[in-house]
Amino acid sequence: MELLVRYLDRSNSICSVSTQDIIKEDTLRDDLKYYFMSPCEKYRARGQKPWKLVVQILKIVMITTQLILFGLNNQLVVSYKEENMMALKNLFLKDYSGVDEDDYSVAVYNQQQVYDSLFFVLDQYSQLGRLSVGPISYAEDEEGKLLPLILCKEYYKRGTLDPSDEAFNIDSELETVCMSHDPKTANQWKTQNSSFFDLDFYRLVDIRATFQLKGINLQTVRSRELPDCYSFYVTITFDNQCHSGKVKIFLDIDAQSCACRDWKISGTAQKNTHYLLVFDAFVILVCLTSAVLCTRSIILAVRLLQRFSRVFHENYNHKVCEDDQKEFLNGWYVLVIVSDLLAIVGSILKMEIQAKSLTSYDVCSIFLGTSTLFVWAGVIRYLEYFQKYNVLILTMTAAFPKVLRFCCCAGMIYLGYTFCGWIVLGPYHEKVNSILVCGEALRLEK
Amino acid sequence: MELLVRYLDRSNSICSVSTQDIIKEDTLRDDLKYYFMSPCEKYRARGQKPWKLVVQILKIVMITTQLILFGLNNQLVVSYKEENMMALKNLFLKDYSGVDEDDYSVAVYNQQQVYDSLFFVLDQYSQLGRLSVGPISYAEDEEGKLLPLILCKEYYKRGTLDPSDEAFNIDSELETVCMSHDPKTANQWKTQNSSFFDLDFYRLVDIRATFQLKGINLQTVRSRELPDCYSFYVTITFDNQCHSGKVKIFLDIDAQSCACRDWKISGTAQKNTHYLLVFDAFVILVCLTSAVLCTRSIILAVRLLQRFSRVFHENYNHKVCEDDQKEFLNGWYVLVIVSDLLAIVGSILKMEIQAKSLTSYDVCSIFLGTSTLFVWAGVIRYLEYFQKYNVLILTMTAAFPKVLRFCCCAGMIYLGYTFCGWIVLGPYHEKVNSILVCGEALRLEK
Amino acid sequence: MELLVRYLDRSNSICSVSTQDIIKEDTLRDDLKYYFMSPCEKYRARGQKPWKLVVQILKIVMITTQLILFGLNNQLVVSYKEENMMALKNLFLKDYSGVDEDDYSVAVYNQQQVYDSLFFVLDQYSQLGRLSVGPISYAEDEEGKLLPLILCKEYYKRGTLDPSDEAFNIDSELETVCMSHDPKTANQWKTQNSSFFDLDFYRLVDIRATFQLKGINLQTVRSRELPDCYSFYVTITFDNQCHSGKVKIFLDIDAQSCACRDWKISGTAQKNTHYLLVFDAFVILVCLTSAVLCTRSIILAVRLLQRFSRVFHENYNHKVCEDDQKEFLNGWYVLVIVSDLLAIVGSILKMEIQAKSLTSYDVCSIFLGTSTLFVWAGVIRYLEYFQKYNVLILTMTAAFPKVLRFCCCAGMIYLGYTFCGWIVLGPYHEKVNSILVCGEALRLEK
Amino acid sequence: MELLVRYLDRSNSICSVSTQDIIKEDTLRDDLKYYFMSPCEKYRARGQKPWKLVVQILKIVMITTQLILFGLNNQLVVSYKEENMMALKNLFLKDYSGVDEDDYSVAVYNQQQVYDSLFFVLDQYSQLGRLSVGPISYAEDEEGKLLPLILCKEYYKRGTLDPSDEAFNIDSELETVCMSHDPKTANQWKTQNSSFFDLDFYRLVDIRATFQLKGINLQTVRSRELPDCYSFYVTITFDNQCHSGKVKIFLDIDAQSCACRDWKISGTAQKNTHYLLVFDAFVILVCLTSAVLCTRSIILAVRLLQRFSRVFHENYNHKVCEDDQKEFLNGWYVLVIVSDLLAIVGSILKMEIQAKSLTSYDVCSIFLGTSTLFVWAGVIRYLEYFQKYNVLILTMTAAFPKVLRFCCCAGMIYLGYTFCGWIVLGPYHEKVNSILVCGEALRLEK
Repeated sequence: MELLVRYLDRSNSICSVSTQDIIKEDTLRDDLKYYFMSPCEKYRARGQKPWKLVVQILKIVMITTQLILFGLNNQLVVSYKEENMMALKNLFLKDYSGVDEDDYSVAVYNQQQVYDSLFFVLDQYSQLGRLSVGPISYAEDEEGKLLPLILCKEYYKRGTLDPSDEAFNIDSELETVCMSHDPKTANQWKTQNSSFFDLDFYRLVDIRATFQLKGINLQTVRSRELPDCYSFYVTITFDNQCHSGKVKIFLDIDAQSCACRDWKISGTAQKNTHYLLVFDAFVILVCLTSAVLCTRSIILAVRLLQRFSRVFHENYNHKVCEDDQKEFLNGWYVLVIVSDLLAIVGSILKMEIQAKSLTSYDVCSIFLGTSTLFVWAGVIRYLEYFQKYNVLILTMTAAFPKVLRFCCCAGMIYLGYTFCGWIVLGPYHEKVNSILVCGEALRLEK
Repeated sequence: MELLVRYLDRSNSICSVSTQDIIKEDTLRDDLKYYFMSPCEKYRARGQKPWKLVVQILKIVMITTQLILFGLNNQLVVSYKEENMMALKNLFLKDYSGVDEDDYSVAVYNQQQVYDSLFFVLDQYSQLGRLSVGPISYAEDEEGKLLPLILCKEYYKRGTLDPSDEAFNIDSELETVCMSHDPKTANQWKTQNSSFFDLDFYRLVDIRATFQLKGINLQTVRSRELPDCYSFYVTITFDNQCHSGKVKIFLDIDAQSCACRDWKISGTAQKNTHYLLVFDAFVILVCLTSAVLCTRSIILAVRLLQRFSRVFHENYNHKVCEDDQKEFLNGWYVLVIVSDLLAIVGSILKMEIQAKSLTSYDVCSIFLGTSTLFVWAGVIRYLEYFQKYNVLILTMTAAFPKVLRFCCCAGMIYLGYTFCGWIVLGPYHEKVNSILVCGEALRLEK
Repeated sequence: MELLVRYLDRSNSICSVSTQDIIKEDTLRDDLKYYFMSPCEKYRARGQKPWKLVVQILKIVMITTQLILFGLNNQLVVSYKEENMMALKNLFLKDYSGVDEDDYSVAVYNQQQVYDSLFFVLDQYSQLGRLSVGPISYAEDEEGKLLPLILCKEYYKRGTLDPSDEAFNIDSELETVCMSHDPKTANQWKTQNSSFFDLDFYRLVDIRATFQLKGINLQTVRSRELPDCYSFYVTITFDNQCHSGKVKIFLDIDAQSCACRDWKISGTAQKNTHYLLVFDAFVILVCLTSAVLCTRSIILAVRLLQRFSRVFHENYNHKVCEDDQKEFLNGWYVLVIVSDLLAIVGSILKMEIQAKSLTSYDVCSIFLGTSTLFVWAGVIRYLEYFQKYNVLILTMTAAFPKVLRFCCCAGMIYLGYTFCGWIVLGPYHEKVNSILVCGEALRLEK
Repeated sequence: MELLVRYLDRSNSICSVSTQDIIKEDTLRDDLKYYFMSPCEKYRARGQKPWKLVVQILKIVMITTQLILFGLNNQLVVSYKEENMMALKNLFLKDYSGVDEDDYSVAVYNQQQVYDSLFFVLDQYSQLGRLSVGPISYAEDEEGKLLPLILCKEYYKRGTLDPSDEAFNIDSELETVCMSHDPKTANQWKTQNSSFFDLDFYRLVDIRATFQLKGINLQTVRSRELPDCYSFYVTITFDNQCHSGKVKIFLDIDAQSCACRDWKISGTAQKNTHYLLVFDAFVILVCLTSAVLCTRSIILAVRLLQRFSRVFHENYNHKVCEDDQKEFLNGWYVLVIVSDLLAIVGSILKMEIQAKSLTSYDVCSIFLGTSTLFVWAGVIRYLEYFQKYNVLILTMTAAFPKVLRFCCCAGMIYLGYTFCGWIVLGPYHEKVNSILVCGEALRLEK
């Protein structure tokens, strides 16, 4: 850096070499000076309009708008899933309070409650059509037959237990028995499968009721978008693997969205989707322009560096040191290009989603979100041109390694402390306990 | 500032000019010195009693008293509205827990519950007179006929849905059908409108029950004030626009107060209202005095500035620089005048409210509150005369721009971070989620 | 201080005066030096045993022990009262959830609930003996007749109301009608007072049920103490003075303890009370000793000061300045004497309470608590003898006025801010709202 | 330290003594220098490989792994106990809400509720087999007879009470009456013991139902471990000793685990236990190695010190001062040895537990946890060799005494404040109150 500065300062001092060289050097000096100017100074010096700056500002506005539009859409999807989750919990779990206890939804403590909860699931499933408020129904297989609810119980293969005598004889292998429960022949399941529902609780490990429902997210119709179709893979688990007298009931939903197979929307729908696609395309265009401009700047910088080092080598027989070379590579440009690429990919994904050929909201949100973060962070670059703001950035840069060093040392002690605390106090402390409950532990060892 | 100080210090040093000029300058110098004195020094120097100070102190006491009196009154009004809101929620919402879930009051998850909640509203409305504890009744139209409850359902015009087949055929236009429910012919509504209550949930967007109640806020009778009459525009919404299997029930009240049309109070009431009006008038008088005194001070200062700059220009051929001119404009006086004006407007509004010709408590409270804030902040001015306290103020003034600069730079990063965080993590985080739920999003896009 | 220090240092330097004077001065110098020594140095210098220190340590131990004993006793009393409060709320309030809402216990919103809650109070009162788990019964008057429950309703004297027409005609004077309800003739009250229970809710301001119960705090029997007898003055208020459709139900208890009139305890009780009295007497003795020793020290110091100032005046013709005089008055001694006096008064009160001739636990706890606080604070004095600890105290002393000044200035702004915030935002903010609810406001204006 | 440093620096300066001595001294100097080197420098200087460092790193990895494995196991045990506690509370306590109020589980306020809760316990106990979901049953005595539930009531021996007259006559001695309740003859207990259940509440102090259950922790079968057998000593207490009208119901469980007497597991179980034992043995081996290496280092250091002080004494006639001697005793080695010993003991305990000959999870977890804490803290030692990190440690060391001194002084004031606050405000403040409730106080004085 010093070398560079000195070189620029010396511009008019020494004039021993030939006139042509002097002209060449002066041009280089001017180019170098110009290169390190701020957009404002550039405009004053050569009257060059700050296109890059204009494009950046336009990009910030557009990408943020796009993000907000996509975010609102994404909210609709996520809240639809969550509300469906809540609705299904309220429909299928007996005595559900509306809030999950710990990680499970309901806990039952005696045999009658287990039977009641289990039969409640089956009964509610049979009359789903008359119960549910939302547009949801049983899934069908490819032949148009309704898919049944499948109820599986898992238990130790064989076993007698006599806690009074502190004696047991158990086969640790698990056996799984299943029955399926067709909603149409609902009234027969109890009589036909009475043996299945004769549970030996001391052998029972868990009961799993799995079924599949289909739903349509109609709310998007009103925001002029095509509705998504959803498949809900519902699993209700009666978990007795701790054998502690507490049966935990979980309800998990795996909701997958897909394009509906057969649809027809009349009325005023599907109009402003076109505008959105045009907007997205325009965003892509702006990002491309920005990326091209920045790439061009980098190429120009590399060429300037080559010229500079050649002149420097010829005239002064010095090599340009690495620090000075780094000055030519502007990290901000790289950041802008990366954020542009992310935004382009994100926008394409968003268009695909809007056209209902994709449903991966999460991936798209990561691309768009990250690109927006980078774009906003890129604004700091322009603050660098003002000396006072720059102080903040320099200070933060300088303090970083010290903070890291402290964290490293403190981390050592903390790690030991954590392990010790976890093992000695952990199991008796509620918070820690709730994280690593017995079920979790078992799953790790499975 | 320096110029001014030097000028005042030089008072007795140079004596080259004519005696008349000297006398003139000395007078100016004395006036200038006097102008920059604290009230205490002024009293010592020329024996002038600090009337402005006395008026300010009186004003603080009176405005604060007035604010407290008005605040207590305002509390009565607001708490009356809120308790009515609670009472109506408890009367009209089935299974209302006493606390709202999120932004809605109750959520129901199956069809029977929707019907039950809906019929509950109608039944409760029919027998309101026998239920409610407060002085509330049905509103009447201008001919003295009771206004009916109007029940509207909004649904997609046409539509068939088959989630199992992932197929639907929907007309995205909304149709609204209403019925009205007269409390007098209550027992007939169910039989007469059976078709209305045959809801197709998959097409249903929302049901709105709107009715109007009248109430009288009798509590003010006891605090010797005229009671207000209230109109409550109640809207109960069964919101199914998410079609997620969860119907949210909202109860919104728009309470408007007005003077009662026909009233008669016997007993000891309406006595101390007169004292309050007198008190308010006195507050206005004090504020007027204060405003007049401060305006006079400003005018005097401007004249002094003109004299000073003329003399300065004649004798030294210098212009008085801007910084010195600013010294003459006392910002505190402006603050005092603004707060006086606010207080006068607020007091007039308060008198109108007390005379029941206005009911805009909110506007009045903003005027009175802001004026009190300014009056108290004005006290700091007198602290400036004591050097040590002043240090605090000067320090704060000096630190302000640096803090602002830091905030600006940090804000940039924060903005990007927020957008990114909101889009990527937002929908899965409860807090963020609860702010921007699907209903809100829809309303934005409508 | 400097003068004193210089005087002490100069001890052997100047020897111009007569030998007798020198001897006199040397004695004074020694006495002065000795006076400012720490207990440790005193012991080394003249072998004087630090009796005061020993007494102080003994006092700390004894007063703390006494405080803990008294505190445990006090806890028993307070928790007895609180648990009785809870028990009565559960007995007399219908649908009491176990936790108060805001400041009231239960809120009801329709007429039937008001009647139910009211009749519930009367029914529960009739069968109190069969319900209550604790030793509680109806109070008797002096002739041995059971005191009845008195039920009063307060309403506007006269009034017609027509909210639909926004018209009312009201007499703002309140009328109170009472009935009394004898638990023995419980089954007749409903039939005999049917007119009383025909409530006009729009006129009703409140209903108050007051009755008196007697209880005995038997738990103290087991801790070898005489049980207290309690009178509970219970007031159940149905508060409708807001006329907002929400009737708040309050239950207030005024529990007064007194010595039981007629008691007999057999078994092993009342034994260790004597030990406690002896212990209290011993505490008083120690405190007296400590007070006497400190008073003696103060007197000695005053005499020394007189001697010193006389000598100083004679020999050097200087007056002892005020700062030096202050050095002689040891503030710690004053603190010790005050804490001793408080402890003595507290101990006497405690003995009276133990002998059941007093029941003012609160007053006694303030005396004992404050004295303990002072005694512990007095320990800091001994830390002063160690230089390093002293630094802390000096720093705190120096920083105090600056902190005060800052608080004063910030307070001004805060006051204005508070008033403004309260009036403008207050009524809509829950926290503030709950403090100054409508009932409170009314009471202020009554 | 300085002496030592000076000695090492002077190595080549003075050469007055005989050549042999010089050689001897040079060897010593080299040895000393070598001793104070870091492992890295040692390797560079003499090519010695850092075995100790390798062993330490291996130890950290192994001990942490072992701790995590043991922690997961311990979690299983503790969560099993807690879930059993919850299950028993839900089975035996009427109207149990799922969360304890304060320290008790349920509070009841009227006589009927007490009887209901009591009979509920007996009824539930009778039909435990049909109720409980877990593998739990009645305990048997040695002859194979089921142990009964024992119900004891404790009351004042004699007593009449008349709160209305403020009169009582009580025998403060307690009498205890018990009955036993055999689950097999369940239907007879009510008719046979009607006199027992005729409670005089004013005399009643408490009722205790104690019974013993046996359970088997089957969940460990699935993680390939032998299940533990458990004895649950359950005590349900109806606590009326406050006689405040509130009867608190506690349920306490003392769960003791033991090896089952008679067991047989078929299937794939009990396989990976062997691997775990081998792993534990390997941990012991590594710890032993580490301990031996460190002991050797200490011995070498002591010998070096002796040589050094001998030479020093001979040549310079100086004694090595204490500070320099301390430099030779490396505190880190002591730490490592202590942690090794703890780890060895912990590992042996862990092996015993795995072999089901011990069940003291708590003791073992303390040993293993503490040793891990020490091992991780020992890592800081290696950070000392890097100058910059060391600064942190030195700063902390220097600041420690000042912090301590401040805490001591502040503690004095705080202690007094605490006692005063506790006695004066304590009983009225909820938090404090809940800690020291009346029952606790009574137990202290018993």
